[in-house]
Amino acid sequence: MSDQPTSKEDHPTGEGFIPHLAVDAVIFGFHDKQLKVLLMQYSKTGLYALPGGFIRQNENLNDAAKRVASERTGLTDIFLEQFHVFGDLARHDPTPFASFMAANGTEPDADHWLLQRFISVGYFALVDFTKVTPTPDKIFDSCGWYHLNALPPLIQDHTAIVNKALDSLRIMLDDKLIGFNLLPEDFTMGDLQSLYETILGKSLLRPAFQRKMLGLGILERVAKKYSGGAHKAPYLYRFVYK
Amino acid sequence: MSDQPTSKEDHPTGEGFIPHLAVDAVIFGFHDKQLKVLLMQYSKTGLYALPGGFIRQNENLNDAAKRVASERTGLTDIFLEQFHVFGDLARHDPTPFASFMAANGTEPDADHWLLQRFISVGYFALVDFTKVTPTPDKIFDSCGWYHLNALPPLIQDHTAIVNKALDSLRIMLDDKLIGFNLLPEDFTMGDLQSLYETILGKSLLRPAFQRKMLGLGILERVAKKYSGGAHKAPYLYRFVYK
Repeated sequence: MSDQPTSKEDHPTGEGFIPHLAVDAVIFGFHDKQLKVLLMQYSKTGLYALPGGFIRQNENLNDAAKRVASERTGLTDIFLEQFHVFGDLARHDPTPFASFMAANGTEPDADHWLLQRFISVGYFALVDFTKVTPTPDKIFDSCGWYHLNALPPLIQDHTAIVNKALDSLRIMLDDKLIGFNLLPEDFTMGDLQSLYETILGKSLLRPAFQRKMLGLGILERVAKKYSGGAHKAPYLYRFVYK
Repeated sequence: MSDQPTSKEDHPTGEGFIPHLAVDAVIFGFHDKQLKVLLMQYSKTGLYALPGGFIRQNENLNDAAKRVASERTGLTDIFLEQFHVFGDLARHDPTPFASFMAANGTEPDADHWLLQRFISVGYFALVDFTKVTPTPDKIFDSCGWYHLNALPPLIQDHTAIVNKALDSLRIMLDDKLIGFNLLPEDFTMGDLQSLYETILGKSLLRPAFQRKMLGLGILERVAKKYSGGAHKAPYLYRFVYK
């Protein structure tokens, strides 16, 4: 879609985009019991922000979220899910955009469309951060993974957006696990428990965890193949609807 | 807020409102094992719709949802919760608004702001329908409760919005139960189970239900008062965070 304007420099009037409405993506990365989040740094400002952008007049909202996340970060094929809309007046803070534009050679008018109030639809995704290489677009100097417990200050209400995304992810985990496609096709109960523990940020007791997971009806046990000493290997499971 | 324009007749240009963005409310009513939803009928058209409206430029999104639901239906003090944003291009269908305006003496231009694409933030609420008397505003002929399994045809994608709301309500029920304030301060496990069964649309086994509810950590058992034969009365519970 590089033939259409997508970044701030490209659409000084906002034409072709829905005004006052944005999308922001909280992309969680997990691996080896670590949970991180993907942040961008606006060019020449040092300001950290979630990857975000705007919705075209002729574009589905969910497609806009995918496009924006892909353009900003270089990530494709991630499963983005809506979790909350941030629409308080108090979140309106034009200073980061004004700083960005000033640092990059533009002095915006006070009524510039980017400095107006935005309501933002929050999306989250969960990926294995060792399997993706985020790449910033031209309006950002960097794009990288930050530990959730050591985030830098973020612009506007983006820290609150991250926290709300984490709450939502934890509540929706049982329902979203299949869609997020985080595990290999066949996995052990230990793999699954480790994933849950990383996201929930706490240890779980194996028997209760296993009972709950089997009770959800989303797992099937894979028939063991005979391979000599393999009878001591743990059972493998896969998602029923995968 | 009757000094400000809120209904279609009152703001022919849409000025003061955020363009392209709406809120729609799915207000579920339950009582005695029945689950209903509140629908409006546009004046002189026979068209059924969810109560919905628009967001003022100077208004928090969540406040707009409360105001719109209250103005449309006369209901106040209901706990509205965001559940999904409907933003597909395919939902754009200007014919109901055009019909409504034509039936009420206005021939709108094709580029009238109400006939343009809208992205709608869906909210739901759950109330005891015997405790509220819905009252339509001036742009609707009626406002009433309809059984979920016998809904009339609705405009645009409103039937899909109702279905998505019900899915979300069922998924989020454990988390939302306290906020929705549906039960008296003290209630029996049977009261609680009946509420769940009504919303989930299926019977539940008492021992498993009781175990799950007590496991959520949101209930405390109320100390029994001595009152003669009352030792045979069922235990009463209340929400811990109520």
